[in-house]
Amino acid sequence: VTSQLQDSLRARLGPGGVLAGDDVGQRYEADATRQQPLRPPFVVRPSSTEELSFVLRACHEVAQPVAVQGGLTGLCGGATPHAGEIAISLERLSGVEGIDPASMTMTVRAGTPLEKVQEAAAAAGFLFPLDLGARGSCTIGGNISTNAGGNEVIRYGMARALVLGLEAVLADGTVVSSMNRMLKNNAGFDLKQLFIGTEGTLGIITRAVLRIFPAPLSAQTAMCSAADLAHVIRLLQHLRRRLAGGLSSFEVMWPDYVDFISARIEGLRVPFAADGSLFVLIEHEGTQPDSDPAMFEAVLGDALQEGIIRDAAIARSEREAAEFWRLRDGIGDVHREIARAAHFDISVPLGSLQAMIDAVKGDLAANFGDGVTQLTFGHLGDGNLHLVALSDPADQERVFELVYTRVGEFDGSISAEHGIGTVKRRYLHLSRSASEIELMRRLKKTLDPKAILNPGRVIP
Amino acid sequence: VTSQLQDSLRARLGPGGVLAGDDVGQRYEADATRQQPLRPPFVVRPSSTEELSFVLRACHEVAQPVAVQGGLTGLCGGATPHAGEIAISLERLSGVEGIDPASMTMTVRAGTPLEKVQEAAAAAGFLFPLDLGARGSCTIGGNISTNAGGNEVIRYGMARALVLGLEAVLADGTVVSSMNRMLKNNAGFDLKQLFIGTEGTLGIITRAVLRIFPAPLSAQTAMCSAADLAHVIRLLQHLRRRLAGGLSSFEVMWPDYVDFISARIEGLRVPFAADGSLFVLIEHEGTQPDSDPAMFEAVLGDALQEGIIRDAAIARSEREAAEFWRLRDGIGDVHREIARAAHFDISVPLGSLQAMIDAVKGDLAANFGDGVTQLTFGHLGDGNLHLVALSDPADQERVFELVYTRVGEFDGSISAEHGIGTVKRRYLHLSRSASEIELMRRLKKTLDPKAILNPGRVIP
Repeated sequence: VTSQLQDSLRARLGPGGVLAGDDVGQRYEADATRQQPLRPPFVVRPSSTEELSFVLRACHEVAQPVAVQGGLTGLCGGATPHAGEIAISLERLSGVEGIDPASMTMTVRAGTPLEKVQEAAAAAGFLFPLDLGARGSCTIGGNISTNAGGNEVIRYGMARALVLGLEAVLADGTVVSSMNRMLKNNAGFDLKQLFIGTEGTLGIITRAVLRIFPAPLSAQTAMCSAADLAHVIRLLQHLRRRLAGGLSSFEVMWPDYVDFISARIEGLRVPFAADGSLFVLIEHEGTQPDSDPAMFEAVLGDALQEGIIRDAAIARSEREAAEFWRLRDGIGDVHREIARAAHFDISVPLGSLQAMIDAVKGDLAANFGDGVTQLTFGHLGDGNLHLVALSDPADQERVFELVYTRVGEFDGSISAEHGIGTVKRRYLHLSRSASEIELMRRLKKTLDPKAILNPGRVIP
Repeated sequence: VTSQLQDSLRARLGPGGVLAGDDVGQRYEADATRQQPLRPPFVVRPSSTEELSFVLRACHEVAQPVAVQGGLTGLCGGATPHAGEIAISLERLSGVEGIDPASMTMTVRAGTPLEKVQEAAAAAGFLFPLDLGARGSCTIGGNISTNAGGNEVIRYGMARALVLGLEAVLADGTVVSSMNRMLKNNAGFDLKQLFIGTEGTLGIITRAVLRIFPAPLSAQTAMCSAADLAHVIRLLQHLRRRLAGGLSSFEVMWPDYVDFISARIEGLRVPFAADGSLFVLIEHEGTQPDSDPAMFEAVLGDALQEGIIRDAAIARSEREAAEFWRLRDGIGDVHREIARAAHFDISVPLGSLQAMIDAVKGDLAANFGDGVTQLTFGHLGDGNLHLVALSDPADQERVFELVYTRVGEFDGSISAEHGIGTVKRRYLHLSRSASEIELMRRLKKTLDPKAILNPGRVIP
C-alpha cells in the first residue's frame, strides 16, 4: 500500500513533493527532544492547501497514519514519526501572503518560520509579538497548533489570542477555511479553536490570519530582588496596577537558579549580592519615550519604599538590558549540563505556587536525599514555572511522577506552554478529569475516525 | 411523557425548581426580540450543577428538547422556546463563589447577572471589564455562551478572552469541569472553547473562572470629527500607536446617525457643527493620573496638526464625558421610533468598510428610492458596525437580504457580537462556507446526538 500511495502522491505533487530513501534527512526523524528518532519511509511536502487536501484524501482512503511536521522544534515528541507513519512536512507551504494595515492583520502560510513572520510585520511598521527561542526554525503553523507561549504572554497572550482566522485540512481531505480578519465575529461556531493547541490531531493548519500591533515606542528593563514569593506576587500586582498592559515581561529566578547559572557563565554580572533573594526581571513597553523612563523609575521607587522589593537596578542602556537577560537566558547556555535532567513546564495558580514548590522539595528530599539539584525559574506573570531537576537518570521517571502528582493536587497544569505530545501523555490524567479526556476522545473520533492524524499524541 | 418528566424533576429539585401553569411568567416566553413568544409547558430551575446534570440526563432519556435561558436579553431569538420545548432557566444557579487576588481570577455561577459580577470585582478592588447595556439583567453564562462583546472589546477582548475556566453539562448529563485558573495551560484540548459562543447548542455552562484586572487609575474622554472613513482609520492607527492598550473605546458615528439622534434628544449638546463629518468618541484608560490628561491632549493635538482630524473636544469633567456618551447611547433613547426598523450588527475588514457601506446605500436606493433612512454607527475599533435601516416593514426581509449579501461579498460577518440564534440562521451561509457549516453540524451531532439542546438555533 505504502509504495502505491507514494507513487500516486509523487505523480500529483511532482518530484520535490515527496522525499524517499536517502533523501529523507535526519531532521525528519525526531523533534527537538531527539528521543526515539525514527526515519519515516517517505516525507510528503505539499506546497498548497489543495495538494495537502489531495494527500490527506489519499491517506484517509487507505488509513495511512501520518506524523505532521513543522519546524521540528517541539519539546514533547509530537512530530517524531512512529512506526508505520509517513511524515507530512509543511516546509514548502510557506510565505507571507499579505499585510492589511487597516485591519492590522497579516495572512501567512503554515510553514513560514516564526522569524520570517516577525520580520515581515516589522518591515511594514508593525509588531508580531509571539516570540520564543526557536524563532529561526519553528513555524507559525507549529506555533498555532501547539498554542505557543513565550516571552510576552503577559502582554499579548498566547498564540491563540493572536489568531483571527485559520484554514485547516481535516483527516479526510476536507478543507475548512475560516480566514476571518475581524476582531469580532460571532457568526456561528468559532471553528478555528478546534485546531489551535490540539497538536495536529484534529486537522492540519495550512494558513492563518494573525493580529499585528504597532511597535512599542519605548522599552524599559529592570532587575529587582525580593525576599520571598509572597513579595514577588505583591510586586506583580503593584506593576499590573501601575503599568497595566505595558508590563511585557515578568521573569522570576529563585536563588537555586541564580547560583547555578552565575557560577557557570563566564563574565556574567549579577546586579545584587546573592543573599537568598528571588530575582525578578521586568520589562515595560510604553508609548511615551520622553517620560516613560522617569515613570518606570518612580513605580519601582514606590515598590522599594513600600517594602515590596529589597533592591532594584534599572538598565541604563540596551547593553545593560541584554546583560540582565543573559542571566535569564543562561539556562540555554548550560544545556549540556542539564541535557539529561528532568525538565518541567508547569503552571499553578499563583496563590498555591509556594506550597507546591515546598511540597515538591519535600518529596524529592524524602526520596533522594539531597541528590537532586533544582533550578527554579519561570514566566511568573502568567503562572508558568520552569523547573529543572538534576537527578540520577535512573530516577527520572520517579521524579516526573512525584512532581506531576503535586501539580495535579494543587490544580495546576502539567504543561503550561509546550503541549503534551507523546512525552506527557501518560500524565495527562493528573491535570484533566476522566470526563474531559473522554470528551477529547469523542472529538478526535468525530474529526479523525480512522485515527490517521498524529495518532498516539495528546490523548492517553 | 412531559408530565411524567415534570413529576420526576419536581421530586428531585423541590417545588421552587419547577414552575408550571400560571407560575410560568411572561418573561420565559421570549428573549429581548419579543418575536414569536411562546409559553413553555414548564420551566426547570436547577440550583446546582448536579441538579442540572440530573435534569439533562432525564431529558436526554426521553429526547425532550429544551430552550436554555439566562437573562433573556438576547437579540437573536436564541432563548425563545419553540413548540414542544421546555425551558431550563439558570436563574437559581447564581452567585459569586470567590475571588483570588493572587491569580487575579474570580469564580462565578452561570446565572449571576453581569452587574453583580462587576460589583463583586469592584468590591475587591478589581475590574471585570465586560460591559454592555443589559448589564443589570443579562447573566454571565449568557454572556459567555454568546461570546458577548460590548464597549471595551478594543482593550480587553470579547467574553472569550476573559474566561480561563469553564464547567458545562453536556446533553446527556455528563459534567465537564475545566475550571482552570492559569493564564497558561496547554495540557490537552482547550475544551471550554466548545461552549463559548456556541449559544447553548453543545452544552449548558454552569460555572466559570473569569479574569479580573486592576481598575484603571485615570480615564480620558474626547469627541473628534473627521472628514471621512479613511481619516477615521488613520486616527485609529494613530491612537493605537500612541496610546497602545490604553485605548478603551473608539465609537464612530456617521452624519446620518448624528443628525437623527441630535434632532430627537432634547437638550443634547453636540460639540461641533454638523458639517458632514464623522464623529468619533474616544476613551483612554491610563495609569498616570497626573500626566495622562496632558499626554492625551498632546496625542489629539498631533492628530489635528497632521490633518487626521478636523476638530477635537476633550471632556473636562465626568459630566462632560457623560454628555459625549449621550450622543452614542442616544440610540437607546429613540428605541420606539426604530423598533420596527431592520437592525444590523455586522463586521467587515476595516479596509473594505467604506466600499461595503457605499454598496449597501446603492442597493437600498436602487430598490427603495430614498425611502430608507439609515443610521450608521459602531464600535469601529474592532470592525463592528451597527446599521439601522428604517424601511417599510413590508420590505424588511428584502433589506436584510441585500445587506447580508453585501456583507458576505466583502468577507464580513453577519453577526459581530449578537450571535445567530434563530433570527439570523437563514443568512449564515452568506458568512460561512458549506464545509464550515457541515463541520458545525458534525460537532452538534457528536455532542448532542438527540438534538435536545437549543435545537434549531445557529445551524441552518
